[in-house]
Amino acid sequence: MNPDITRERENATFDVEKLTHILDGGIEKTKRRREIESLVISDPDFQSEDLNFLSRSERYDAAVKKSAHMILKLREYGISDPEEIYCYKSVFRRHHHEALGLHFVMFLPTLYTQCNKQQLKKWVPLAESFKALGTYAQTELGHGTHLRGLETTATYDPATQEFVMNSPTITSIKWWPGGLGKTSNHAIVLAQLHTQGKCHGLQAFIVPLRSMNTHIPLPGVVVGDIGPKFGFDEVDNGYLKLENVRIPRDHMLMKYAKVEADGTYVKPPSAKLTYGTMVFIRSMIVGEAGHALAKSCTIAIRYSSVRHQSEIRPGEPEPQIMDYQTQQYKLFPLLATAYAYKFVGQYMNQVYHRITGDISQGDFSELPELHALSAGLKAFTTWTASAGIEVCRMACGGHGYSRCSALPDIYVNFVPTCTYEGENTVMMLQTARFLIKSYRQASAGHQLSGIVSYLNESERRLQPQSVSSRPTVVNVNDLASLVDAYKLRAAKLVEMAAKSIQQELQKRVSQEDAWNNSAIDLVRASDAHCHYVVVKLFAAKLGEIGDTGVHSVLSTLALLYALQGIQQHSGDFLQTGLLSVPQLSQVSQRLKDLLAQLRPNAVGLVDAFDYRDEMLNSVLGRYDGNVYEHMFEWARRSPLNKTEVHESYHKYLKPLQAKL
Amino acid sequence: MNPDITRERENATFDVEKLTHILDGGIEKTKRRREIESLVISDPDFQSEDLNFLSRSERYDAAVKKSAHMILKLREYGISDPEEIYCYKSVFRRHHHEALGLHFVMFLPTLYTQCNKQQLKKWVPLAESFKALGTYAQTELGHGTHLRGLETTATYDPATQEFVMNSPTITSIKWWPGGLGKTSNHAIVLAQLHTQGKCHGLQAFIVPLRSMNTHIPLPGVVVGDIGPKFGFDEVDNGYLKLENVRIPRDHMLMKYAKVEADGTYVKPPSAKLTYGTMVFIRSMIVGEAGHALAKSCTIAIRYSSVRHQSEIRPGEPEPQIMDYQTQQYKLFPLLATAYAYKFVGQYMNQVYHRITGDISQGDFSELPELHALSAGLKAFTTWTASAGIEVCRMACGGHGYSRCSALPDIYVNFVPTCTYEGENTVMMLQTARFLIKSYRQASAGHQLSGIVSYLNESERRLQPQSVSSRPTVVNVNDLASLVDAYKLRAAKLVEMAAKSIQQELQKRVSQEDAWNNSAIDLVRASDAHCHYVVVKLFAAKLGEIGDTGVHSVLSTLALLYALQGIQQHSGDFLQTGLLSVPQLSQVSQRLKDLLAQLRPNAVGLVDAFDYRDEMLNSVLGRYDGNVYEHMFEWARRSPLNKTEVHESYHKYLKPLQAKL
Repeated sequence: MNPDITRERENATFDVEKLTHILDGGIEKTKRRREIESLVISDPDFQSEDLNFLSRSERYDAAVKKSAHMILKLREYGISDPEEIYCYKSVFRRHHHEALGLHFVMFLPTLYTQCNKQQLKKWVPLAESFKALGTYAQTELGHGTHLRGLETTATYDPATQEFVMNSPTITSIKWWPGGLGKTSNHAIVLAQLHTQGKCHGLQAFIVPLRSMNTHIPLPGVVVGDIGPKFGFDEVDNGYLKLENVRIPRDHMLMKYAKVEADGTYVKPPSAKLTYGTMVFIRSMIVGEAGHALAKSCTIAIRYSSVRHQSEIRPGEPEPQIMDYQTQQYKLFPLLATAYAYKFVGQYMNQVYHRITGDISQGDFSELPELHALSAGLKAFTTWTASAGIEVCRMACGGHGYSRCSALPDIYVNFVPTCTYEGENTVMMLQTARFLIKSYRQASAGHQLSGIVSYLNESERRLQPQSVSSRPTVVNVNDLASLVDAYKLRAAKLVEMAAKSIQQELQKRVSQEDAWNNSAIDLVRASDAHCHYVVVKLFAAKLGEIGDTGVHSVLSTLALLYALQGIQQHSGDFLQTGLLSVPQLSQVSQRLKDLLAQLRPNAVGLVDAFDYRDEMLNSVLGRYDGNVYEHMFEWARRSPLNKTEVHESYHKYLKPLQAKL
Repeated sequence: MNPDITRERENATFDVEKLTHILDGGIEKTKRRREIESLVISDPDFQSEDLNFLSRSERYDAAVKKSAHMILKLREYGISDPEEIYCYKSVFRRHHHEALGLHFVMFLPTLYTQCNKQQLKKWVPLAESFKALGTYAQTELGHGTHLRGLETTATYDPATQEFVMNSPTITSIKWWPGGLGKTSNHAIVLAQLHTQGKCHGLQAFIVPLRSMNTHIPLPGVVVGDIGPKFGFDEVDNGYLKLENVRIPRDHMLMKYAKVEADGTYVKPPSAKLTYGTMVFIRSMIVGEAGHALAKSCTIAIRYSSVRHQSEIRPGEPEPQIMDYQTQQYKLFPLLATAYAYKFVGQYMNQVYHRITGDISQGDFSELPELHALSAGLKAFTTWTASAGIEVCRMACGGHGYSRCSALPDIYVNFVPTCTYEGENTVMMLQTARFLIKSYRQASAGHQLSGIVSYLNESERRLQPQSVSSRPTVVNVNDLASLVDAYKLRAAKLVEMAAKSIQQELQKRVSQEDAWNNSAIDLVRASDAHCHYVVVKLFAAKLGEIGDTGVHSVLSTLALLYALQGIQQHSGDFLQTGLLSVPQLSQVSQRLKDLLAQLRPNAVGLVDAFDYRDEMLNSVLGRYDGNVYEHMFEWARRSPLNKTEVHESYHKYLKPLQAKL
């Protein structure tokens, strides 16, 4: 054990294990999680070569191998609870993705929720036994977010009772679905349904892609891998071009909408029914943002405690780089953010499960709010976390660029969350739509409930006042007061966005153009709303914590989180008159004090995330802090070191020298 | 040609070719650049497979091949001007790095500048004929920025007149130098010189690493590749462990410091002499930041003009995504930034050459200012450009993640500039040291000259005044007035940082601790200083432009750049009383107007950067806008598509299906 990191652990002022229980949701959950992790870590079939040394084809191969092995093991151990499966996967995947990911996350759930009874009977056993290996093909080469723009067609032919599936243009080729390229033999394909000479919009169809015996693509199916990407090396994201592929009528998923034998289209009862999965996945991503940032902070903070560099005081030994205020200022607010997002993730998970209960009882009332919240928070958290991972990586100096730090992998495999499951700017605008609607309702005298209830007050409280004359209400040392400031900022920015739309309308532009011409303000309002929600939930979490030591350190983190946000957005707080110039100086000073206060607890706080070395897979983030000897050992295994002299010397350099 | 992009070009209000000449520095330079580019592009030996489809070893192989070929071609064409060589390289390298990069950038220049006459006679011919293939080994596993901390030793043995080179610890292993792992047979090694029982600090030594006949590492030399990284796949960054390696006395570079035969150490005449190269490389990086951002903007803006998505007005066709205000707000300020950095790069280049002239005359007076400026601007521009590349990438939606967009390559190969040649935070603090020193001189009544002369005024003009009573001087429509606002902001933030140090000192902490406890403020001050310099230089550039159309569009860009910076840092401008709250609303509105105003010129402005498709190597950034058919074609060449059925199916999936 590196003595520096031992000393850090001795200096912690709180019980790390207790904080781990809070993060897991209880002591029993910690215990069970660790049991599952040990199952994977002790399993010799999950030990593999470092993926960084493999070619893409080898990485894909290794991922398929692990997925196949996992399926057998989960059965063997009888693990079937989704949370436990998720935990099991996250250990062996490390920062990477699973080859059969979409089979579990999209193919099976879609079958469960959109098949009618006969279809369930046929497809679920095939999918659960992995005879049908499936994916979900929605996005097209020329079409992403805007589902109505999708071009793939399914034209019903009553003569044979079949749908004829086609990709009529280059832009209609299905593009991006994970597992589509090489792994899947079936896909749920989203296509425009044409029957009786009319288009009825998007429907989902089960399309066989490859022979279930030979895995060779079926006639009319042009399928393959879309090529290398930024991350996701082990996933065969694919393309699919359908050329007059005929599928039986009962391959359309018919729980809701239907096409009868003669081609008659029957409408679904409600459009909201397909909402659920999307909301769930976005909520999950919020937790993932906390997870990715927590891993990155663990690596950067442990490394910062063992790396010595430069000098603060001349003549003294090189200090730990964590002693530099600039290093603390980079890392500690991100550490606070990781905690915040982990708690928000827990909250979203709870709300989702509560509302799912309501929905199954036919009560959709809370769905719009959750839908809006999950969209905005997904964007808000993934943007911050992505940028934060890079800050952590660069805070490790040169070594953060080495693949052995794991930080490049964490980044490239997390950053796509900014784009998939709803492009972030589009997500922010969805939330803005809900906020503006709520604001207008409040302005019209309706009493709002739920998370946007603060908009009720805006008319009353946000009178235009000059900055200097406004009474100062915010106490920069009091978290509740800061939550209030974030709330008022959100209210003000929603109001400003609404007013921008109003002003545009006065120029006689259309509603739609007024919306687009105010989009910058709308995104800003959504951002402020999400920021308020995160600060509020962090503060609320503190109320649940009994242990004094843990409560104290988390309170410091929460305060740091809130104050740093104010400093970063100081313009908003000054502009809306919520903070005065002297208070802003107080914020700066208080922030510095909090950094110094957190310094002795930084390693304890990342230890509490409880990532085992086998999961973190980072030489810089090792629990024992013995970084350098392991970097050297890792480097020696680089494929370029297999021979002393690389063949390029004989091929190019020696001949060059001979010519000159 | 895609009709959308054709229409964009027709709408441009200025002469694109004229702007290209300005960027190149004159019509003749444009012509010559294009000639050189054509030499590479038409050369069949530079056509190679897409690097994205190759393994790391193959990529390294391809890079060595190209470098060897380049050396022969440059001789054949008689290209020897450094700028022309740089241009030639940048075409065939595309976004990647050259295998022999450090031989040219560090090995040769160090020989030229630090060899004495006999050494020049021996080493330069060996290096220029590539018999000696060299690199520059400074950074160690445990030591980067802080040169005094380096541990490698060179102990003089007068008995044999040799230096004994050693890596005494794990942390002293040389780590990171490009070309060290497999390519180089020599390295200039920085080591602590020990002679006559005393350490004389760092000196540079030429250490033979590999046999010049067989390329096999010499006895005592443990050398190899440090393994895969985030980018730089084609470079063999290496490690070097020296175990009692003996080199003759005349392998120490002895132009300045010397060790005589008996071991007597002779001091160099001035410490400033080694400054130059460092300043030059940092200045170059500023230009590179403009270049990387310009390439990214070209890709994202061209793609935004041909990608159609969603709807602004219901019922109308899907608009070009560039019509969304949010998309304009992401891309146009970055486009303005790319122009700004290109102009700053030109300026730095001119200043460097002017000052180099002075230095060769023994006049070092301007060096400290250039040193400080190049450090801060290197940090300022590389941080912004790195984040900006990612914004461009994500503005391309899902396809930005595909390697065929080239954006992942641009990012991973540019972002290391934030860390190498001086870690950015350390660079910012170096600039801060100069600013604080200047501020103190001004406060003591000395009249400052040069770029920091604004600090003369700070005492006089920056009286504390309440925000509301302060007369409003800034005109948000006038660039000169905005330059002034940036200047006053910088002055104020330098003053705040100085006061923070003062306050810390009053707490009776040491100078060094006071500095560290104010580091956040110091970085912020440097950032404001650099921002001021960039805005100022952009405004100054406008004065040189005669053509009305070009002047008009660049003025719009400059105003956008200045106003967006104010919006992003609105807290600073409000806090320092330079802007009032109503003015901030004006800034927001004006920004929106400028985005709309630039919209028709966006494609023209990226066309003016004049990157040929062969250099951009991006399917999304194609000049003809025909994106989708080429994406499909590219994807089909993915190595995973070489077989219809991947072997992992037979190895894992079929057996799995059989077991369930």
